[in-house]
Amino acid sequence: MGVGCSHLSLSLSPSAFPPFKAATTSRPSRYTNPFSSLPLNSTYSQYHYCPYTSFTMSLAPSSIPSQLAAWKPGGSDEVLSDEFLEKVVNDALVWSALHGLVVGDRSNSRSGKVPGVGMVHAPFALTPTPLPISYWRQACELAPLFNELVDRVSLDADFLQNSLSRTKNVDEFTGRLLEIHLQMLSLDKKEEIRLGLHRSDYMVDSETDMLYQIELNTISSSFPGLGSLVADLHRNVLEHYGKDLGLDSRNVPENPAVNQFAKALAKAWSEYNASSAVVMVVVQGEERNMYDQYWLSTVLKDKHGVASIRKTLAEIDVRGRVLPDGTLVVDGHSVAVVYFRAGYTPNDYPSETEWRARLLIESSSAVKCPSIAYHLVGTKKIQQELAKPDTLERFVENKDHVATLRKCFAGLWSLDNDEIVRTAMDKPELFVLKPQREGGGNNIYGTDVREMLIKLRNEGNDGLAAYILMQRIFPKDSLSYLIRDGISHTEKTISELGIYAAYLRNKDKVIINEQSGYLMRTKVSSSNEGGVAAGFAVLDSVYLT
Amino acid sequence: MGVGCSHLSLSLSPSAFPPFKAATTSRPSRYTNPFSSLPLNSTYSQYHYCPYTSFTMSLAPSSIPSQLAAWKPGGSDEVLSDEFLEKVVNDALVWSALHGLVVGDRSNSRSGKVPGVGMVHAPFALTPTPLPISYWRQACELAPLFNELVDRVSLDADFLQNSLSRTKNVDEFTGRLLEIHLQMLSLDKKEEIRLGLHRSDYMVDSETDMLYQIELNTISSSFPGLGSLVADLHRNVLEHYGKDLGLDSRNVPENPAVNQFAKALAKAWSEYNASSAVVMVVVQGEERNMYDQYWLSTVLKDKHGVASIRKTLAEIDVRGRVLPDGTLVVDGHSVAVVYFRAGYTPNDYPSETEWRARLLIESSSAVKCPSIAYHLVGTKKIQQELAKPDTLERFVENKDHVATLRKCFAGLWSLDNDEIVRTAMDKPELFVLKPQREGGGNNIYGTDVREMLIKLRNEGNDGLAAYILMQRIFPKDSLSYLIRDGISHTEKTISELGIYAAYLRNKDKVIINEQSGYLMRTKVSSSNEGGVAAGFAVLDSVYLT
Repeated sequence: MGVGCSHLSLSLSPSAFPPFKAATTSRPSRYTNPFSSLPLNSTYSQYHYCPYTSFTMSLAPSSIPSQLAAWKPGGSDEVLSDEFLEKVVNDALVWSALHGLVVGDRSNSRSGKVPGVGMVHAPFALTPTPLPISYWRQACELAPLFNELVDRVSLDADFLQNSLSRTKNVDEFTGRLLEIHLQMLSLDKKEEIRLGLHRSDYMVDSETDMLYQIELNTISSSFPGLGSLVADLHRNVLEHYGKDLGLDSRNVPENPAVNQFAKALAKAWSEYNASSAVVMVVVQGEERNMYDQYWLSTVLKDKHGVASIRKTLAEIDVRGRVLPDGTLVVDGHSVAVVYFRAGYTPNDYPSETEWRARLLIESSSAVKCPSIAYHLVGTKKIQQELAKPDTLERFVENKDHVATLRKCFAGLWSLDNDEIVRTAMDKPELFVLKPQREGGGNNIYGTDVREMLIKLRNEGNDGLAAYILMQRIFPKDSLSYLIRDGISHTEKTISELGIYAAYLRNKDKVIINEQSGYLMRTKVSSSNEGGVAAGFAVLDSVYLT
Repeated sequence: MGVGCSHLSLSLSPSAFPPFKAATTSRPSRYTNPFSSLPLNSTYSQYHYCPYTSFTMSLAPSSIPSQLAAWKPGGSDEVLSDEFLEKVVNDALVWSALHGLVVGDRSNSRSGKVPGVGMVHAPFALTPTPLPISYWRQACELAPLFNELVDRVSLDADFLQNSLSRTKNVDEFTGRLLEIHLQMLSLDKKEEIRLGLHRSDYMVDSETDMLYQIELNTISSSFPGLGSLVADLHRNVLEHYGKDLGLDSRNVPENPAVNQFAKALAKAWSEYNASSAVVMVVVQGEERNMYDQYWLSTVLKDKHGVASIRKTLAEIDVRGRVLPDGTLVVDGHSVAVVYFRAGYTPNDYPSETEWRARLLIESSSAVKCPSIAYHLVGTKKIQQELAKPDTLERFVENKDHVATLRKCFAGLWSLDNDEIVRTAMDKPELFVLKPQREGGGNNIYGTDVREMLIKLRNEGNDGLAAYILMQRIFPKDSLSYLIRDGISHTEKTISELGIYAAYLRNKDKVIINEQSGYLMRTKVSSSNEGGVAAGFAVLDSVYLT
């Protein structure tokens, strides 16, 4: 589990389902790994990927595409004309502009601060990415189970404190979160109304044909707004051009993410029961993904009549206070719900000011989305702890649920497991070495895994605690049309499925526990990173097959 | 009558109804003029305006507003706080960004060519402009009458040719249009399916309390798309902040302009009866107002299943041809309807290429919106001819209709009327001297009118034919919040009401003849042009009082 993805920083992992059965697509073959009995093939190394790599989409003009495609999605070998593609791309760009599928343009210095200026369409895939319906159902079924799991784990303060006790020595950020958590424990502070707006990210491993969870975002799950729109865009594209593309718009599932998240925020506001109170969105000082957030507050306002304010942590520290009865008041507004779209990375806490604001919020009676405890449940270390034998059973009674959850866990190990460290040094190509630290550090692959493990061993205990090992997942890649800055690029891509889920409870009463839409993200695969569009990711939707 | 307004060039005339009864607004007092018996007051000169002045909205960042307002619309003297205004402005900007109320940003060189890049919100007024319901009803009632009038006049080829015979000597552009008209006459070419998408622009004269027509656009009537959105924006603003603003959202009439125009285009397409044919939008090479146009083609596509293509006149010349049966084919597409959003100004015909394209279109069987004849009916000279005694009666049998139409005609005279020329030299402040030439030349006001008249007289006949005299109309001005480039300006403004109207007939069958939404435009009044926002205009809507 890890930090949320916001600010157009798409934490992307590959998935194994091919976006399209394109003529030029090759696939990695079977290989042997410690988790399956499938034969290893030397071509696998072509399909490097970085499960946790966050990268920022460049919104600067890119060069002219070298290869406007001459292939056709939907399994047909028939070639689409350049003129046809140009028309579809143009229509999709127009749709984006007219329907608010937009972000701030980095080239405009005011675009991260003032709405309505310096807008550019959000990067998107021209057509949705195929996904076998069995994986789709599996991912949707997992949503309420993870919701319950997060809630249960969040209540086990000792588990959180103990699991993260070593992490805090190597990750100051998690340490500060733990401190606040401890302070709340010492005050015996209870969160009676608990709101989770999560996004669980998955990919399919082509070697095992398994759907694996990459991370669970419990804070600042981004793109419910723009993600909903991309599904609408794709349905529109297929309604008009589906025949030519060999795709049927009915196979793109509706994506109610923004409506469901707004509904959950509104219900939490209503449970808090203070009619003049507002929802406070905690934001970064500059936010080029502001329209994704504004979609949520717009639905909240127009559909549910709930007003929201946007404040940075620094502003909250200066202008916020907690009344004796626990009410959080910021700039004169009573706050019913605090919705974090900032505060998930150490970068959001440049000084003590921001930490004071976080503590202030936590000590108030406002509903926090998320609370410190929910936030901590989303760390990679907790993801790894939950993957340990018998741990899930501590939180989930239902054996079927345990099995369902466990089925999507990739291998995750801490470095105090000597056996797995030996295996990783022997076959480093089957592992990813991941820093524990939230929001920072690159994943390590290939022979670098071996070298790093040797180095860490020599350095001693704390160094080892700073990393975890994860089973490496091998996606299939395929060709997609990626549209960025008005230009279409045909690239080999890999995709990741995110499932949104909303959870709301008040004491013993579970008010909402449901899957709440989805997000598909597609990025240029690392085997292709020398191309014109290296390291770029786009918003996408699902085409059920 | 005059050219259409497109490309963000807002042809704006003042209106006399006060946008708001703001505390600081003063009004011109009564004065004597040749058209009414009201007393003249020397303060009138404060209320200069230019009925036909086209000016282009600058989209470059403007300076920080010097005077964020401390007044309140809706007639109350209560002062609104800066914080409140900031919130309303922010919400309105967000609404614009999310709902496609956007234009291309001049500072982005690609914004006029590629959709989805370099977008900025369209300039808008924060709240709608009050309009007494009697004027509203009058303007709406006029719509079908002007539709019929345009159609009737368009069929009287001799009237058009004779009326414009002198104009063509001083206006090459109108001369070329007349030439094409004559060529069609010589071929005995009939337009059986006739489609008009007009916009008649009005303002209210505060001295006479009369609603006067400023011009009738029969080609390229702009802003049906963005105009519809501004009404939605204003209703949204008033739904949330109406109480504080003292305004009720129900008083903003719905604005179905884009839907009605799309419906009319679809019906014309259907009358043409060629299922594989398209609507061709004739566009300029660069168009920063493209989203207004795209709204229309989007509704046409999504609601009516009619595809459209966009071509410049130059492209049509190169890639278009007319088949022996009259079918216009451009780039392989049969064209059912040609919808002009270019071709209304001499600037759109830099070479013979563009004139060839216009002739090609006219000689085809495609429905033209407008035909050459409809285009000619929209010239200022025809507006002036129709204002002459007994002329309306040639085209309209119904006496009530004649009276209704005539009531909105301001005084309009050609310079061969010695009496009016003498009056104008005596009281130049009551007239505007307007060049006949379409799309060019500034109006002349005040003592310059006298000087110019003397000069023209000395020069002889052709010089006189280049101008017409128009009754000067005196608007009230008032304070408005104008939002441009994300910044709010509080300015003294004047407003102009445009009424859209659609007309479609096939031979004797009138299929559509209806008022089709509206456009309010508000500009900084000339009495205020030294301010930071000099010469800028915004999209607006109507608040019925």
